[in-house]
Amino acid sequence: MNVLVNGRREAYRTVSFDSAGNRVLLIDQKLLPHDFEVAGFGTYRETAVAIRDMTVRGAGAIGAAAAYGFAQGIRAWAGGSGISDGFMEYVDDVFRTLGEARPTAVDPMNALRWMRKVLTDSGLGSTEEWGVRALDLADQFADEDVAHCQAIGGHGASLIREGMNILTHCNAGWLAFVDYGSATAPMYSAWDSGTKFHVWCDETRPRLQGAALTAWELHNHGVPHTVIADNAAGFLMSQGKVDMVITGSDRVIARTGEVANKIGTFTKAVLAHYHKIPFYVAIPLSTLDWELSSGAAIPIEERAGEEVYSVNGISLRSGARESVRVANRESRVSNYGFDITPPDLITGIITPKGIFNPSELGGLEGLAD
Amino acid sequence: MNVLVNGRREAYRTVSFDSAGNRVLLIDQKLLPHDFEVAGFGTYRETAVAIRDMTVRGAGAIGAAAAYGFAQGIRAWAGGSGISDGFMEYVDDVFRTLGEARPTAVDPMNALRWMRKVLTDSGLGSTEEWGVRALDLADQFADEDVAHCQAIGGHGASLIREGMNILTHCNAGWLAFVDYGSATAPMYSAWDSGTKFHVWCDETRPRLQGAALTAWELHNHGVPHTVIADNAAGFLMSQGKVDMVITGSDRVIARTGEVANKIGTFTKAVLAHYHKIPFYVAIPLSTLDWELSSGAAIPIEERAGEEVYSVNGISLRSGARESVRVANRESRVSNYGFDITPPDLITGIITPKGIFNPSELGGLEGLAD
Repeated sequence: MNVLVNGRREAYRTVSFDSAGNRVLLIDQKLLPHDFEVAGFGTYRETAVAIRDMTVRGAGAIGAAAAYGFAQGIRAWAGGSGISDGFMEYVDDVFRTLGEARPTAVDPMNALRWMRKVLTDSGLGSTEEWGVRALDLADQFADEDVAHCQAIGGHGASLIREGMNILTHCNAGWLAFVDYGSATAPMYSAWDSGTKFHVWCDETRPRLQGAALTAWELHNHGVPHTVIADNAAGFLMSQGKVDMVITGSDRVIARTGEVANKIGTFTKAVLAHYHKIPFYVAIPLSTLDWELSSGAAIPIEERAGEEVYSVNGISLRSGARESVRVANRESRVSNYGFDITPPDLITGIITPKGIFNPSELGGLEGLAD
Repeated sequence: MNVLVNGRREAYRTVSFDSAGNRVLLIDQKLLPHDFEVAGFGTYRETAVAIRDMTVRGAGAIGAAAAYGFAQGIRAWAGGSGISDGFMEYVDDVFRTLGEARPTAVDPMNALRWMRKVLTDSGLGSTEEWGVRALDLADQFADEDVAHCQAIGGHGASLIREGMNILTHCNAGWLAFVDYGSATAPMYSAWDSGTKFHVWCDETRPRLQGAALTAWELHNHGVPHTVIADNAAGFLMSQGKVDMVITGSDRVIARTGEVANKIGTFTKAVLAHYHKIPFYVAIPLSTLDWELSSGAAIPIEERAGEEVYSVNGISLRSGARESVRVANRESRVSNYGFDITPPDLITGIITPKGIFNPSELGGLEGLAD
């Protein structure tokens, strides 16, 4: 999507590839919103580190980063053209290194498995052919991620009417995918079609992805928006200032319609239900979980307490990056990363195949995005 | 209440007075939770600045600070013993300086008006007698604030059972009063009677009073507690981990039972209602507003956007106090300070006179605390 660079809007993807330099290019999300920088990673090991240390985050984005990292690793093989045991061991090592970078995420592993299977089944005659094909597949993976998000946007845009106030939580934006995003895709689609509206961005403690990333995205695209403390959403709803909520999701239990997403999503859903405000969740089909029979089976990650104890930002005094402790040091903190929203609080699930009631997701079984 | 000083628990009040030095003594809340310091203010003008700059905050605490500041000013009169016009003008100046320190707060003005009326009506013969009497009245004001909070604690403690998990929002603790607090008074009373329980402290963005002040209070008193991001309360309720909510209030509309309190209170009430968890509000009678006929008439203060843009804390690197910007700089922010909780979401109002249904507050009309 668009990034303001020296006052002009330029199109970027979250993840891309420099073929000549064999570098994975990532918008460094650890620097946002304070600095915009596209960082190049010259080896698959560096790419794995970038996935692990959250330079890139979000399901689609880390999937594509792993895919490009896999191609990057294969293209860097210096052991000759023959498909030797040594080459195959090396490919396994690249696969493992990237797959283990974010062990709880499914997208990198899905991308890597798909690429390895296609490459292995293709009967390619040389390591150079592996390299060419791997990059084609990574490009295909990234382009499909973009296409899925565009399709979400096309369906979801129909919900957005002139003058609406839309609330979103966390960042399910283009920075979390290769482009367009999930929750934001309907917004970008509607905006680019000329519909005017306004977005409330929950700041989304503890990691503040709404204040930092979603606000940055919307600013760069020129969409009017306002950052609020998470505590303010209920009051705004009570004042009639929210017409619709759209969030993303990390995992939707297809059999029940339960939605796992960033902590606080469930709270917004309860508030929307109380105020009879439509609550939508936007996802690519890869977010659907066909294995679990209930949201209660989803392990809720407890993240590092440091995220609640302290806050990262830019010193107003020196301009330097600082982490500041805000909570009483001797107090215990808890930091559940996700919550589960039950289907009766959800108006609809916006997918690349259309908008579905959470009870109707079974019809999507077996479909790819 | 108790403060851990060199490993020992010592009793402190939020506001007190050094009679020999004619100094108002305030726990400096701008330094908490990082440093505990009792600051002395040597003139009524310094005391007014301390009220204005939030060295002391909270209804009861700023009322008592203004009361002591008034006595301090009168005691500092150096123009002779006679009740001259000059003395009365000086008294007016002290009154005005302290009354204007926090213009939207009612407690300082209530304290000052009461003191001036009693002093004027007393027919005192000398400025020295004014000084002695003024300090007596300030002590009386502070002691009554303590007694009101203790009475809230006595009634509210009956609600707390062994093993409960209690959620509270913001800081309606002893730091907001002279001692005991409103929302925390039932907790301190129950704890001191031997009942064991655990408190969830909403961190309470944007100013983080829960993470900084309530957590500090509970730690110093030895009450088990855990700080959470505001986003986590709904999830904890859905997991059966919250048995009761107690908050304070800035203003309760007596005619309707509507509660104005720190932004986010309404959200917790909606969540508690959804989960059928009791939701209590603890207040002294001075919090009851008998004038307004509806919560919609309460002006909702929009506070400085800087509170959302940035966060104050202690640098993890240098240990210095820092404000760090967290939100995208070019984005708009909004920062409503309070919200209104309707009476049907409130299980009971805990007062010094007992626990009332929000529809029954009319019976308290005309009563003082």
